[in-house]
Amino acid sequence: MATWARLETAHGSRFAKLHGTDWDILSAAPWAGGVATGDRIPGPEASLLAPVEPSKIICVGRNYRAHAAELGNELPAEPLLFFKPPSAIVGPGAPIRLPPGSGRVDHEAELGVVLGRRCRRVSELEALSFVAGYTCVNDVTSRDLQKRDGQWARAKGFDSFCPVGPVVVANPASLDFEVCCRLNGELRQHGHSSAMIFPVARLISFISHIFTLEPGDLLVTGTPEGVSPLSPGDVVEVEIPGLGVLSNPVLQGD
Amino acid sequence: MATWARLETAHGSRFAKLHGTDWDILSAAPWAGGVATGDRIPGPEASLLAPVEPSKIICVGRNYRAHAAELGNELPAEPLLFFKPPSAIVGPGAPIRLPPGSGRVDHEAELGVVLGRRCRRVSELEALSFVAGYTCVNDVTSRDLQKRDGQWARAKGFDSFCPVGPVVVANPASLDFEVCCRLNGELRQHGHSSAMIFPVARLISFISHIFTLEPGDLLVTGTPEGVSPLSPGDVVEVEIPGLGVLSNPVLQGD
Repeated sequence: MATWARLETAHGSRFAKLHGTDWDILSAAPWAGGVATGDRIPGPEASLLAPVEPSKIICVGRNYRAHAAELGNELPAEPLLFFKPPSAIVGPGAPIRLPPGSGRVDHEAELGVVLGRRCRRVSELEALSFVAGYTCVNDVTSRDLQKRDGQWARAKGFDSFCPVGPVVVANPASLDFEVCCRLNGELRQHGHSSAMIFPVARLISFISHIFTLEPGDLLVTGTPEGVSPLSPGDVVEVEIPGLGVLSNPVLQGD
Repeated sequence: MATWARLETAHGSRFAKLHGTDWDILSAAPWAGGVATGDRIPGPEASLLAPVEPSKIICVGRNYRAHAAELGNELPAEPLLFFKPPSAIVGPGAPIRLPPGSGRVDHEAELGVVLGRRCRRVSELEALSFVAGYTCVNDVTSRDLQKRDGQWARAKGFDSFCPVGPVVVANPASLDFEVCCRLNGELRQHGHSSAMIFPVARLISFISHIFTLEPGDLLVTGTPEGVSPLSPGDVVEVEIPGLGVLSNPVLQGD
């Protein structure tokens, strides 16, 4: 069971692999052929960045029945796709900045899937063999702008609106993930990936028939019910047992 | 007036700068600090790829009054943003592949703007100083899926649905661009960038207040009226005088 992270080092950001409680620095991302360089950073000294640098972030809307219902939406007959820009990514501990005038901004705890190999037109049966690992994602969303714009690019695209991490886990003990969100320590979202309308293998197969998935691309699989608004001073945590806790403070942006 | 391209070479793809009729190979993209390596490829021997490798493609919907009208849409009060994935990019001469079951697929000729520097919260006045250059883009769109999905990620995200090129021109003689599209030699679209509802400087300023624009990012500025469907065997050309002709054959995808 490999666990990967991306660390801030004296030589810039580096991907790393967990070794006991230390990090073995890699020459590149594991899905880009990175191998151990021999450098090692003790766990307590490591500063974790977002563990992904995707060429694209593909998100799925309304993939849990109860969340579609809480926003008054019909269930989709096919996966509903949208993109977040890579510039929205921040790592564990980094602030989510509420943009001036953006109205209600919600947390959306989601399971993230990192692609390990280039993937085009794959079947559902073989889809999971293209996965490098799993991580936690917060698909932060300006609810007001989402409704006003129709297209979700702005509402979900602000800088810092895509916390990812803390790590990518290659072979978790179970593929039935529990997706939780706590706001200031209070449980707000709780769901099981088994309740997804379109499970991960089906999503990868469906998407790979539209466009090519590249190694390192991030698939964000939809949020369970219980979304709620963020305020300056909040701390929001996405936890998926087995994958860790993604904790981010919330600040008012300037 | 610098003109840049990306070429297929024996050592992989390389950015290059036009020198007379030849191409001076650069060490990296011009907006990533690329300098001349001393290698030169004669113009007639050059095989041109898409002249961009953006971290994101930001597109603007309904930015020309007459096009919004032809699709029965209201004029937007603010720029309407969406993303195309980088995996959709193809270069000049590469085929646009019509996906099975995608219904009506339209050409949309557009002015592309390539960012030269990282850009966050810039004013309209300074916005154009962040531009590296201009190019032609075809924002190929499955009209059926666009209506069916609501979100446009799938309809505009298929592999090959973003032809770009043939070159990026740094300082064109005029910033009033004529955007034309010909289908099998017949003029279908013709507009002037001066008729944009939100001009380029306004778009860059607006977008840079939402998310950070990175060097090499591609801004696609909307299409004038006259969109029409593509069929296998067609040849579609986007021409912007001063920037060249972007020509792509249309094939039925497998």
